[in-house]
Amino acid sequence: MYRTHTCGELNLAKKGTKVTLSGWVHRSRDLGGMTFIDLRDRYGLTQLVFNMDTNAELCKQARSLGREFVIQVTGIVTERSNKNLKISTGEIEIIVDELTILSSSVTPPFTLEEKSDGGDDLRMKYRYLDLRREVVRKNLELRHRMAMETRNYLSSLNFLEIETPVLVNSTPEGARDFVVPSRMNPGEFYALPQSPQTLKQLLMVAGMDRYFQIVKCFRDEDLRADRQPEFTQIDCEMAFVDRDDILDTFAGLISHLFKSVKGVDFEQNIPRMTFNEAMERYGCDKPDIRFGMEISDMTELVKGKSFVVFDSADYIGGICASGCAEYTRKQTDELTAFVQKPQIGAKGLIYAKVNADGSIKSSVDKFYSEEDLKKWAELLQAKAGDMIFVMAGPKKQTLNALNELRLEMGNRLGLRDKNIFRPLWVIDFPLLEWDEESKRFYAMHHPFTSPMDEDMEYFTTDPGKVRAKAYDMVINGVEVGGGSIRIHNSDVQKLMFKNLGMGEEEVKRKFSFIMDAFRYGAPPHGGIAFGFDRLAAMFAGLDSIRDVIAFPKNNAGKDVMLDTPGPISQEQLDELQIKTIKKQA
Amino acid sequence: MYRTHTCGELNLAKKGTKVTLSGWVHRSRDLGGMTFIDLRDRYGLTQLVFNMDTNAELCKQARSLGREFVIQVTGIVTERSNKNLKISTGEIEIIVDELTILSSSVTPPFTLEEKSDGGDDLRMKYRYLDLRREVVRKNLELRHRMAMETRNYLSSLNFLEIETPVLVNSTPEGARDFVVPSRMNPGEFYALPQSPQTLKQLLMVAGMDRYFQIVKCFRDEDLRADRQPEFTQIDCEMAFVDRDDILDTFAGLISHLFKSVKGVDFEQNIPRMTFNEAMERYGCDKPDIRFGMEISDMTELVKGKSFVVFDSADYIGGICASGCAEYTRKQTDELTAFVQKPQIGAKGLIYAKVNADGSIKSSVDKFYSEEDLKKWAELLQAKAGDMIFVMAGPKKQTLNALNELRLEMGNRLGLRDKNIFRPLWVIDFPLLEWDEESKRFYAMHHPFTSPMDEDMEYFTTDPGKVRAKAYDMVINGVEVGGGSIRIHNSDVQKLMFKNLGMGEEEVKRKFSFIMDAFRYGAPPHGGIAFGFDRLAAMFAGLDSIRDVIAFPKNNAGKDVMLDTPGPISQEQLDELQIKTIKKQA
Repeated sequence: MYRTHTCGELNLAKKGTKVTLSGWVHRSRDLGGMTFIDLRDRYGLTQLVFNMDTNAELCKQARSLGREFVIQVTGIVTERSNKNLKISTGEIEIIVDELTILSSSVTPPFTLEEKSDGGDDLRMKYRYLDLRREVVRKNLELRHRMAMETRNYLSSLNFLEIETPVLVNSTPEGARDFVVPSRMNPGEFYALPQSPQTLKQLLMVAGMDRYFQIVKCFRDEDLRADRQPEFTQIDCEMAFVDRDDILDTFAGLISHLFKSVKGVDFEQNIPRMTFNEAMERYGCDKPDIRFGMEISDMTELVKGKSFVVFDSADYIGGICASGCAEYTRKQTDELTAFVQKPQIGAKGLIYAKVNADGSIKSSVDKFYSEEDLKKWAELLQAKAGDMIFVMAGPKKQTLNALNELRLEMGNRLGLRDKNIFRPLWVIDFPLLEWDEESKRFYAMHHPFTSPMDEDMEYFTTDPGKVRAKAYDMVINGVEVGGGSIRIHNSDVQKLMFKNLGMGEEEVKRKFSFIMDAFRYGAPPHGGIAFGFDRLAAMFAGLDSIRDVIAFPKNNAGKDVMLDTPGPISQEQLDELQIKTIKKQA
Repeated sequence: MYRTHTCGELNLAKKGTKVTLSGWVHRSRDLGGMTFIDLRDRYGLTQLVFNMDTNAELCKQARSLGREFVIQVTGIVTERSNKNLKISTGEIEIIVDELTILSSSVTPPFTLEEKSDGGDDLRMKYRYLDLRREVVRKNLELRHRMAMETRNYLSSLNFLEIETPVLVNSTPEGARDFVVPSRMNPGEFYALPQSPQTLKQLLMVAGMDRYFQIVKCFRDEDLRADRQPEFTQIDCEMAFVDRDDILDTFAGLISHLFKSVKGVDFEQNIPRMTFNEAMERYGCDKPDIRFGMEISDMTELVKGKSFVVFDSADYIGGICASGCAEYTRKQTDELTAFVQKPQIGAKGLIYAKVNADGSIKSSVDKFYSEEDLKKWAELLQAKAGDMIFVMAGPKKQTLNALNELRLEMGNRLGLRDKNIFRPLWVIDFPLLEWDEESKRFYAMHHPFTSPMDEDMEYFTTDPGKVRAKAYDMVINGVEVGGGSIRIHNSDVQKLMFKNLGMGEEEVKRKFSFIMDAFRYGAPPHGGIAFGFDRLAAMFAGLDSIRDVIAFPKNNAGKDVMLDTPGPISQEQLDELQIKTIKKQA
């Protein structure tokens, strides 16, 4: 037996007990005739004591141990004179009388402390060392608890976790599939699922009633900022439900997770906001509602004063930044440069300061009188000391720029507290999005999303006008989940495919299995999927999903520890009856 | 709202209540002026009543409904005159006053009853209909419960479920990897894991202490009898443990599963048997210990009586089949033909019947006297009425034939009751297996398995003699899990690779990440993996794993419902920079 206790459980109640511990040498220090070692395992740290006076041999051996050696010790639990009340084992130490080296260690390439001196690449190459750091390990523990709570909660509501296959067929549109050549069927390929969408719908047709799965999904696309080629979803589907049944059920799940894992209680029901309202008030479909600073439409108010920028604009909107009237020229210039970045693309930024005495000073005083500006302040509810920012241009683009500016101001003003969580349902999305380039509609969610009943009249005549029974859950400006009520009627599904520009042949080839299934009594159904990596990162207070994944890949889709992807042998290629070719330059 | 209750929950306590139900038309019958419909959902059946006298319109509509139509009804819960006490809803029926057709259905291609008239291929093509059958659905419900109990049990013991990547690197030996071309890294491939073996070992090096995962694994090999290209493991690993810690922990898991899911209580600890003992007593390394009929080594006893078959044989063994003395010539001929099948390959079968009067009649009376045969009976503890079967030949092959015969006799005599479960640990496996053809050793479990300390002296001198710290869990003759204590020292690991005939270059290329990891303080560790599909099939009383998998593939590795694998577009091939080639005939 390697241990009687872990390094995280001993305290004064065990004083005088003989114990055996195993773990890693975390830190070690020699003080006069004594050597102290902090022994570490997943559960904590325990101080070991070696005394040159009483056991010189053993103490010398202890002094030879390097960082990260794995050792086993036996000794007596003793009260510490110099207590450390920050850790649960801080009142005791072990007076060691036996020491065994289980495994030695060369010096780690970076320090295994809360703040490591290792860069990202080095940490990923030695991920097994990086994971020894408490901050990283705690993320995986959190993720485990979240998965357990999710499963137990959904199971208690009669959801069944059902494993869907990983080797499936290539799917319709959107990002690219990973494919897998079949040795038994040369020239043929499986695909890895981007989501189990059609399979979970088939499970509803199969009468499984309530399905969930915490499941890996795959996307072979360029990895922007914070994406992974393989990612994990909490994937759910329910039969005999309408939208509100789904929203209620999964508001329940999310509330339960926050309560049970983070101790956060939502005081009220999760609010709902239509897509249109979100766009008007926040300039985006995933508003961060931890703070106000909502967008006001100033178009009517500001036109007709000979200011050509406004007079010629499709839309003029503004936000009010509380307490920012004292911003310097340097600060406003910075913000102007911020909104003019190519990713945002605003032409410029106009401001109006409400001074302490109530007077208003703007960057467009030439065109607007104090009287005019008072009306701005009134519309935006700006008080003395506030700053109004105004932008003008094409509506969609200007709303987007106002959204970016609002979030930036939220950051600057410390209004986006990571310990406050404000979930929101965004509902009533458009069903289709028109793509100018390819001159066709794309499904805003996916092609199985049901149109809203009240908009069905436009489904054949003016599809762009149709709203969908779709919904996203947004927390703190991050889309953590989304879903829809699905089409469960093959005629409606056929029309949907037609609206997406798919011919009958293509539909038959790609979707005959689900069109067939709808002919045998499909129940009304709908579902949702949550990005589990994203949700875990949010719970951990992290911006990146990478540190809630045990072995993540880098931006080039590579695992630098495993050194994959890599070449395979000619023998393997021959077996699969494929060959690799160099792209023509 | 589509329903106030499910079809499985109403009873007399709800008598008089107005309810709304939704579900499938399971059966329907017209009796005089009444129509009765059994409405079905996942939770049960509820009888609906329509009356021609009170509502002719509605009753006519009900009569037009076909099998598998999806309907919604509203009505009053009423006491049934003709109660069906076999189902929980059998005391009530619903007098319907509103009926809505949610979805119609064409006639299913096979009957959705306990015994279906659909063949395997048809059932798989319409798996979403097959899953509506209660017998199939119950398997998935069972599987869900088993997964939940596994997770909660292991989590309560401080195991963390940690997701390991699906896109990994190609692994060492054994069955073939599926590979995945990377679009971002042309000419390079990921592989799908045959198991997360090395990754879970890295998690131990990372100090995660106790890991588990219910995880998909992949193997691109010819699908014998009951294999799937993707299958699910309960994969586990622990640090600072020796073999007995692992056996105790996972005996606990298996006992918990049997108790909580099937209500089966093992009266005693799970017994242990060495590989050598299993081979001697049962002729195989996964003995079915639900019944005795153990093999007796008769080699010494029967030689020297001028029977050349025995005198020239390496090994002679026998079993005693209780109560089979009355077997006819036809029956013994059948058994002889059975052991002579090419898969078993015995030369012949010798028998000796112990008659009611104690006299013994054998097929080799020419060579053996009554006195001789009495000694046989004594050795095999054969009583009056029993039959002794004897085979001779090379030891390994003969033991195997005796094992097959024993299992066959167990089946014939009804000794292999599916409702009795007898788990067993088989331990002390050989570390290596010699392959005559390639003149090299192969790892019996895998190359990371630790040799037994007491056999280390042979590790370099006579590797074939070394036993491993490996163990299998066998239940009713089926290997449901297996694992080992791992090597955690890079020098020992190097020797192991050398014994497997791998050069330094190859080791470096394939395993540098784990050899590296061992240099930074690797704890002693070990683990186990259970075949979850197999375990679920055993719990469900099924011989095939297929019916505990929602969407299984057939023996050609095809999913006939999704019609995969299949060709992919030239565009996709170009993106991946690969092409398919026809094998030279």
